[in-house]
Amino acid sequence: MIDPNGIYYLGPKGSFTNEVAEIFEGDKIPKRTITEVFNSITDNSIGIVPIENSIEGPVHETLDNLFKNEEIYVNYEIEKEIKLVLAVNPSVNSLNDIEVIYSHSHAINEAKETLSKYNFTNFVPVESTSTAALYASKQKYSAAICSEYAANLYNLKIILRDINDSINITRFIVISKKLMEDGDKTMVMFTVPHKPGALYKVLEKFYNNNINLTMIYSRPLKSIPWQYYFYLEFEGNIKDNKVKVTLEEIRNITSMLKIKGSFTKLQYQVSNYLS
Amino acid sequence: MIDPNGIYYLGPKGSFTNEVAEIFEGDKIPKRTITEVFNSITDNSIGIVPIENSIEGPVHETLDNLFKNEEIYVNYEIEKEIKLVLAVNPSVNSLNDIEVIYSHSHAINEAKETLSKYNFTNFVPVESTSTAALYASKQKYSAAICSEYAANLYNLKIILRDINDSINITRFIVISKKLMEDGDKTMVMFTVPHKPGALYKVLEKFYNNNINLTMIYSRPLKSIPWQYYFYLEFEGNIKDNKVKVTLEEIRNITSMLKIKGSFTKLQYQVSNYLS
Repeated sequence: MIDPNGIYYLGPKGSFTNEVAEIFEGDKIPKRTITEVFNSITDNSIGIVPIENSIEGPVHETLDNLFKNEEIYVNYEIEKEIKLVLAVNPSVNSLNDIEVIYSHSHAINEAKETLSKYNFTNFVPVESTSTAALYASKQKYSAAICSEYAANLYNLKIILRDINDSINITRFIVISKKLMEDGDKTMVMFTVPHKPGALYKVLEKFYNNNINLTMIYSRPLKSIPWQYYFYLEFEGNIKDNKVKVTLEEIRNITSMLKIKGSFTKLQYQVSNYLS
Repeated sequence: MIDPNGIYYLGPKGSFTNEVAEIFEGDKIPKRTITEVFNSITDNSIGIVPIENSIEGPVHETLDNLFKNEEIYVNYEIEKEIKLVLAVNPSVNSLNDIEVIYSHSHAINEAKETLSKYNFTNFVPVESTSTAALYASKQKYSAAICSEYAANLYNLKIILRDINDSINITRFIVISKKLMEDGDKTMVMFTVPHKPGALYKVLEKFYNNNINLTMIYSRPLKSIPWQYYFYLEFEGNIKDNKVKVTLEEIRNITSMLKIKGSFTKLQYQVSNYLS
């Protein structure tokens, strides 16, 4: 089923998504953006991207691509705890030597409180935590907030561990052109007619059919200011009779309905699912 | 009512929020972050921050601060179309001279398609569009994607106008410690008990009382992974009887309910509301 030459993931090499991709056997190809991961997927390849973070919430670029790319479905989800370290260029001998700290803006926010006791002020946001590690490897007296994995990849010295201000878990999804009907949860995306109670009436169908929602979120349609599409996850899979009935019912009261498939949760620790 | 020394806004000077703040008379004080605007507000001052963008959706830092700061309420909303320009350091004589383009990552995304026909590739994300203008003013052969206002403030040359890929409107709010009960719309934030249909039952009250929702959004609680709070806006004000009844009803079925007040829409073009 899986093309071993086609596991596309949100890079660069050393990213958190790269770590998650390591549970799959086969050639892994980093892409610069989530959109490029979606655009790379062929009939026989898969993609791996983050979809939600317990601190920052859903990842908009992933949602917007799922909504836009009708032929791409969600097959698995994988949760991973994100642990940040402060890693430095080998020129740094003490914390006082650090002139600049690179990281993704989210990671900077997530470590800010912990790092504030060391009086660092010069944080520079870059594309990703692994890009930050790359920069820190090239510039004297610089540091990165990144994963241990990225720090090792770029030969940085780890001088502080567990610098997250609070627990931080990211949920990743495996996407492909294959619609799966088995699994623990199902994802749909939809728009509703612009009239009172339209969203309420959709949720009513789930409630009346005894289906538990696990996620509801809204995203701007962009093309029309202040109009939103909704992203919903719920328990059960497409083969369940009550799910079938519900999807039929909501098809009549939504203006656009995209069924993104059912999916199973994979455990991060276990390796080589596809071997 | 308004302390003329206390109009705090999301800076730096030259930001889109700064432009909106100009409709108010009195001393305006830029703050580096949205959180700092919230933290600066005293009994007699106001704050101005963005809350939603028609392309990017709600502004998370604003929502999270509204949720966290119980004593801060929403008094007005103001919509403004965001028009981006490409502005250059005076050293730049033609598009080919541009070596680097600074901007906020959102603005880079919003102008990417339009700018792609000029073959620019070296975009560097910085804190804000006005910071980008500041950088471009200091560095030869650099440019910024920013507002005309910021370009003029930093003496840049505007070489391309209307570079947004699509229409882009930002909604700003005026916040203070005063709960307002008059206005066109009302904002509430709440959490629901962790049981099936909990959100549905809240929306049911609005539907049954004939109140139109204009916005629903969810944000992670952070303290507990995968638990969310909801942010709701609806038509009507707190003095309306049906709003009063609805708020009483949902108080019983939410686990935490924060009423952020009713508010009126101000027109951007009109100046000096408070004079």
